[in-house]
Amino acid sequence: MADVSYRPADIGAAIASGSFRTDGMIVAPCSARTLSAVAYCTGDNLLTRAADVTLKERRPLLLLMRETPLTLGHLRAMTAVTESGAIVMPPVPALYLRPGAVDEIVGHTAGRALDLLGVDVAGLPRWGGTEPAN
Amino acid sequence: MADVSYRPADIGAAIASGSFRTDGMIVAPCSARTLSAVAYCTGDNLLTRAADVTLKERRPLLLLMRETPLTLGHLRAMTAVTESGAIVMPPVPALYLRPGAVDEIVGHTAGRALDLLGVDVAGLPRWGGTEPAN
Amino acid sequence: MADVSYRPADIGAAIASGSFRTDGMIVAPCSARTLSAVAYCTGDNLLTRAADVTLKERRPLLLLMRETPLTLGHLRAMTAVTESGAIVMPPVPALYLRPGAVDEIVGHTAGRALDLLGVDVAGLPRWGGTEPAN
Amino acid sequence: MADVSYRPADIGAAIASGSFRTDGMIVAPCSARTLSAVAYCTGDNLLTRAADVTLKERRPLLLLMRETPLTLGHLRAMTAVTESGAIVMPPVPALYLRPGAVDEIVGHTAGRALDLLGVDVAGLPRWGGTEPAN
Amino acid sequence: MADVSYRPADIGAAIASGSFRTDGMIVAPCSARTLSAVAYCTGDNLLTRAADVTLKERRPLLLLMRETPLTLGHLRAMTAVTESGAIVMPPVPALYLRPGAVDEIVGHTAGRALDLLGVDVAGLPRWGGTEPAN
Amino acid sequence: MADVSYRPADIGAAIASGSFRTDGMIVAPCSARTLSAVAYCTGDNLLTRAADVTLKERRPLLLLMRETPLTLGHLRAMTAVTESGAIVMPPVPALYLRPGAVDEIVGHTAGRALDLLGVDVAGLPRWGGTEPAN
Amino acid sequence: MADVSYRPADIGAAIASGSFRTDGMIVAPCSARTLSAVAYCTGDNLLTRAADVTLKERRPLLLLMRETPLTLGHLRAMTAVTESGAIVMPPVPALYLRPGAVDEIVGHTAGRALDLLGVDVAGLPRWGGTEPAN
Amino acid sequence: MADVSYRPADIGAAIASGSFRTDGMIVAPCSARTLSAVAYCTGDNLLTRAADVTLKERRPLLLLMRETPLTLGHLRAMTAVTESGAIVMPPVPALYLRPGAVDEIVGHTAGRALDLLGVDVAGLPRWGGTEPAN
Amino acid sequence: MADVSYRPADIGAAIASGSFRTDGMIVAPCSARTLSAVAYCTGDNLLTRAADVTLKERRPLLLLMRETPLTLGHLRAMTAVTESGAIVMPPVPALYLRPGAVDEIVGHTAGRALDLLGVDVAGLPRWGGTEPAN
Amino acid sequence: MADVSYRPADIGAAIASGSFRTDGMIVAPCSARTLSAVAYCTGDNLLTRAADVTLKERRPLLLLMRETPLTLGHLRAMTAVTESGAIVMPPVPALYLRPGAVDEIVGHTAGRALDLLGVDVAGLPRWGGTEPAN
Amino acid sequence: MADVSYRPADIGAAIASGSFRTDGMIVAPCSARTLSAVAYCTGDNLLTRAADVTLKERRPLLLLMRETPLTLGHLRAMTAVTESGAIVMPPVPALYLRPGAVDEIVGHTAGRALDLLGVDVAGLPRWGGTEPAN
Amino acid sequence: MADVSYRPADIGAAIASGSFRTDGMIVAPCSARTLSAVAYCTGDNLLTRAADVTLKERRPLLLLMRETPLTLGHLRAMTAVTESGAIVMPPVPALYLRPGAVDEIVGHTAGRALDLLGVDVAGLPRWGGTEPAN
Repeated sequence: MADVSYRPADIGAAIASGSFRTDGMIVAPCSARTLSAVAYCTGDNLLTRAADVTLKERRPLLLLMRETPLTLGHLRAMTAVTESGAIVMPPVPALYLRPGAVDEIVGHTAGRALDLLGVDVAGLPRWGGTEPAN
Repeated sequence: MADVSYRPADIGAAIASGSFRTDGMIVAPCSARTLSAVAYCTGDNLLTRAADVTLKERRPLLLLMRETPLTLGHLRAMTAVTESGAIVMPPVPALYLRPGAVDEIVGHTAGRALDLLGVDVAGLPRWGGTEPAN
Repeated sequence: MADVSYRPADIGAAIASGSFRTDGMIVAPCSARTLSAVAYCTGDNLLTRAADVTLKERRPLLLLMRETPLTLGHLRAMTAVTESGAIVMPPVPALYLRPGAVDEIVGHTAGRALDLLGVDVAGLPRWGGTEPAN
Repeated sequence: MADVSYRPADIGAAIASGSFRTDGMIVAPCSARTLSAVAYCTGDNLLTRAADVTLKERRPLLLLMRETPLTLGHLRAMTAVTESGAIVMPPVPALYLRPGAVDEIVGHTAGRALDLLGVDVAGLPRWGGTEPAN
Repeated sequence: MADVSYRPADIGAAIASGSFRTDGMIVAPCSARTLSAVAYCTGDNLLTRAADVTLKERRPLLLLMRETPLTLGHLRAMTAVTESGAIVMPPVPALYLRPGAVDEIVGHTAGRALDLLGVDVAGLPRWGGTEPAN
Repeated sequence: MADVSYRPADIGAAIASGSFRTDGMIVAPCSARTLSAVAYCTGDNLLTRAADVTLKERRPLLLLMRETPLTLGHLRAMTAVTESGAIVMPPVPALYLRPGAVDEIVGHTAGRALDLLGVDVAGLPRWGGTEPAN
Repeated sequence: MADVSYRPADIGAAIASGSFRTDGMIVAPCSARTLSAVAYCTGDNLLTRAADVTLKERRPLLLLMRETPLTLGHLRAMTAVTESGAIVMPPVPALYLRPGAVDEIVGHTAGRALDLLGVDVAGLPRWGGTEPAN
Repeated sequence: MADVSYRPADIGAAIASGSFRTDGMIVAPCSARTLSAVAYCTGDNLLTRAADVTLKERRPLLLLMRETPLTLGHLRAMTAVTESGAIVMPPVPALYLRPGAVDEIVGHTAGRALDLLGVDVAGLPRWGGTEPAN
Repeated sequence: MADVSYRPADIGAAIASGSFRTDGMIVAPCSARTLSAVAYCTGDNLLTRAADVTLKERRPLLLLMRETPLTLGHLRAMTAVTESGAIVMPPVPALYLRPGAVDEIVGHTAGRALDLLGVDVAGLPRWGGTEPAN
Repeated sequence: MADVSYRPADIGAAIASGSFRTDGMIVAPCSARTLSAVAYCTGDNLLTRAADVTLKERRPLLLLMRETPLTLGHLRAMTAVTESGAIVMPPVPALYLRPGAVDEIVGHTAGRALDLLGVDVAGLPRWGGTEPAN
Repeated sequence: MADVSYRPADIGAAIASGSFRTDGMIVAPCSARTLSAVAYCTGDNLLTRAADVTLKERRPLLLLMRETPLTLGHLRAMTAVTESGAIVMPPVPALYLRPGAVDEIVGHTAGRALDLLGVDVAGLPRWGGTEPAN
Repeated sequence: MADVSYRPADIGAAIASGSFRTDGMIVAPCSARTLSAVAYCTGDNLLTRAADVTLKERRPLLLLMRETPLTLGHLRAMTAVTESGAIVMPPVPALYLRPGAVDEIVGHTAGRALDLLGVDVAGLPRWGGTEPAN
């Protein structure tokens, strides 16, 4: 349903340049390898190039890191990108909203991600005051 | 369904002592506050005391950190507990297994957590070779 | 004169959730203990929970740290929250504005704090070019 | 062609105060000494004072560091100001745009600097998809 | 036998203020939790407040840390308080003095602690030249 | 009212030598620039030279840092001087003493500073047990 | 009562080789000098060589560090060996077990040390739920 | 002679999943590039994916790093994987065993590697007490 | 005009071995990705292999890093290679020499790079005493 | 001319115990090896043991480090002992006092060392205001 | 076959002084203990003294570290000496040269070591372009 | 007796440019302020500019740091310049050569400094094997 899509090898695409204006970038899901390529600037495809540009231009970059459990290597890369300005958001389901189906979980995670970029999502369920566990 | 359960204030319970033998400990879900209390040894209840004992005795400690997105503060605490020997495991759903219901997601996360402690879980779905995204 | 006020124990209040929109948060005065709870994510009340949410959502968080003199412990916590995105602002009076009364000092500090959150304060005295000491 | 200009010794100028509103600040060219004065807060003139104020108010600060090659001392100061919120931008010419004259190089660098502060520059050449070297 | 004693909750006691003169402070025994609360300034009772004040005023603070074995978390907190000026003294018995009873051990530890604060303890057994093991 | 005063350029004054005995030194107010010059030993006037000597001789050095809000650069310099043995004391007014006039605030701050150097100040108001905020 | 004993100079003993199987090693008591020799690999006798081998083979190594109070130097060495995989255990007496004689203290410490290596000690007193101090 | 072998590109193989049980993993020989890919999680083939999984599951991972001499870059990567739980083992020949042929050297290195994974190797020569050089 | 040239995939070329004698190596231009591959030893082609060998043999390695502006990730990689012995030289034009054409800029940068490797370049314009800006 | 002197091997001497009261300790001259033994607690003779005790008791310890030039290894050890509370004082001659003979240099250095321990030395030449070079 | 040889205790030998000119120094084999003594300046014999002098004079120092596998302690010492200017070279055999006998391995390692010191070794086998494994 | 000399303000002198060839630079004596200006790149005169250029061109830079005793601030600056490639050499007299006059001390220090730059000094006294103290 995307308006535009690129192949990873299309390193010369518009989004690979800071002069192309964007509101930010979301990587979903984000593997440990992509996370590390952004953290240490070792990437070689359009995805990691565009993420690097997003950080260079100081625009929001959101990484839905799906790896679990975490090694010290993952945590160091997560810390490094956070210090560089990115937001690491593991797609943990918000069970306190008592989702009835898997789609609700996916939808809520997508909604929160867009929320963090300042994109208003109609109908996003919001927490209304239940007591958190431990 | 637990055989034994304690209140957080029951600081004198058996599990608060290293001389009580256990195979390890799972904190599920684990809030940022509990994670930090374990990371920095600032806790004041049975849960954090037992986690500290688990680390002292060099037994497995698994923390299902549910907070998302992550701040630098969360990442530092996650790194500190990992360096101290704990395993941080955000309960990210394994969507590549194409779960049909929320219960499957919860069950799979529980199964993987027990797997990491060496507890054999019958019927735990296991990855059989699909291609990871990006 | 606040529109809404909560008790510290009211952990389930709207401001404890990132889905509740705010322009930022000011803690005034901010004790060393609250500062540290925010820095290390060890807090257990609404104030520290809301501050953690503010950092998670990358909104402005301003801490009017009143402790003095400072220990290495205070400075490490001040550094940690600053690295996490907060602004530490000790309420030092702007004596170069030659305040005539204690209320002027309090008012000017409040004005500068709001200024940093982007809230326009009518009549806020502004520095017009005097020479700074040493 | 500037509307207003100050001498370095004019430490009492309006831009030396956070209460004077600006959209940010560009230092061009930026010597290693000015960079370090901003990084370590050791400056003693209007330029470094205004840069410090820009960081205090969390406004964009852009440093066109011209020194080359770089020593470990330069890199540490560049890292320190970046961690404090500034943007270090060595004025490296964008040769992939195939500039025909020195003025084009200077103009493009100025344009990109303003771009980073959110100032729209008419006619700024923008990258349209060529393949980057190695 | 103390001249004065306070409850932990008595946060407004005289010793909670730096303006009350003391020769220093001994915490005996000192749990991992109290140690950490002092190290990271997260404490909420009179004991940790008074310890923080002692460090602020640069007076001697002695912590008889009783936890054993030690995790990385304990060691980091022990290092942090030592860097802040405190003295960490695990109450290890001086077996080379060949104590005949438990009371002798306790008495000797108390004597050494007071010694470190400059309080002269009559009859404190002192080492007279035996050969240390390995 | 000082017995002796020097100009900043008087680098050869008695207080520039460690062989001249003093009980310590107070810098009030202390700008970010002076703080940094002491922290990094980059100073070039009598004030910073005398402060460096005070640290070399391991005598008390008190810095009434007036800058606010704080950048990461300020915090690093504050941490560095504290690790070198100085005491950083932002002149935050003790509002819990309910001062009636600006002079009382200035007087109390001066009194506390002298207190930290071991100089007894007659009539210094001292905290008598009120409850601290949050 | 040992089955085998070596002199410190017997650098060619079986336990100096990783190919000799052991369940781990306990150093009791452990001086600051031995601790540091293990931490920094500077040792020159059988004891430190065997400890280094134990760490190389990733087997349990337990150090009953008896030094007290602790300097920053001790704490750094304790941290370094802990990061390398050893367990530092100051032989602090478990007074909450209300030992009646010095031998009980020594016996309990020995029992806990063996416990940590997985050696079952019959009759080791175990904590049964008393309330910890502060 | 292996029972099973995979191509590097076979990213979907069983060993790429933590749910496939193994006793650990040996990389022999291990290039600087593979070492770094494991250390920083930047790998893109089955080998590095399987190594990452081995660390995630906290199983033994042994890297026979063959690069020599070492740069600071190699040492940092070696340190990072060691902190993450791997064992770095440069295949240095045990000349003190006076091997008569190259095959003996290779065989002994393989034997020691398996030894570290707990695999018993019949006939592995073991050190019997010779004096180490310098 | 080169005497010899290799393809990036030609990993077995002479320059990939330290035993092939060279006077050093220049990478021009050097992308962020190549810089990082050298910094973290993650490269997989002849260019990064040869650069790693140059560092191993402690020969001069010069990287004409063209990326701008810089993220924290770029700066960390620049710092890491500098600590490993490389020289990072952003190709910033020497405008104080008042170049008349783009070719002069390119030629001067090339000349300085060769200068740093000890290669004498006839006719290289050299600075003769103009005053540096700010 | 000393009242008491010990051999380095006399590890059981009175000064090897903290319970023996001293005003501090001076090591003159101090070799790099002794400095490091104190910094890292690896010493094995009376000198290093007494220095360790001096640091444990938080008494003044002065090291007249004579090594020159300095390696990174020397500087790290000098920094470590300084952080532990010692004072490193290279016996650099005070040429600005225009000494006429070698004995004057030695005498002045000894005088300054005693000065730092609070021992009054009659006739110690003191700096009276000459201008420092560069 | 050496022209000159010294005993380790011969601390007064010519090579213990920087004023004796050498082209560098090779330690072969180098134990973990010698490596650490050089890294931390704790050595007490001619070998470590001469190595320290080599680093002080900024001459090449090559350490053929034979220890394997490596602990964190070894890696830290290896990193420290590398940062101080030494070259750590584990004597890993170059199997890609397909050595036919143990002597070839020893000879090749010696040849490479001399190569790194700039000593030309006739007949040293050199890599001619084979493909490296993984 | 110098061939050429410059005033500190002569920032445009030949030695302020890397294109002017030198064999290195000696700063004698070197104050703490000059050391720090070189370490942190904050200098504003010809001396510090020329030192910065010397480091940029990777030529030898020798600093005869005369400050004593040393603060943590001095040690950090000494460490920073050493990591950047400079050599810090406190002009400690070589008393083991038993100098008869102050001039001999000055001459020997100058000789050793030139020695380190590779300048041969006729008649420089050299150590011939005396035993070093402790």
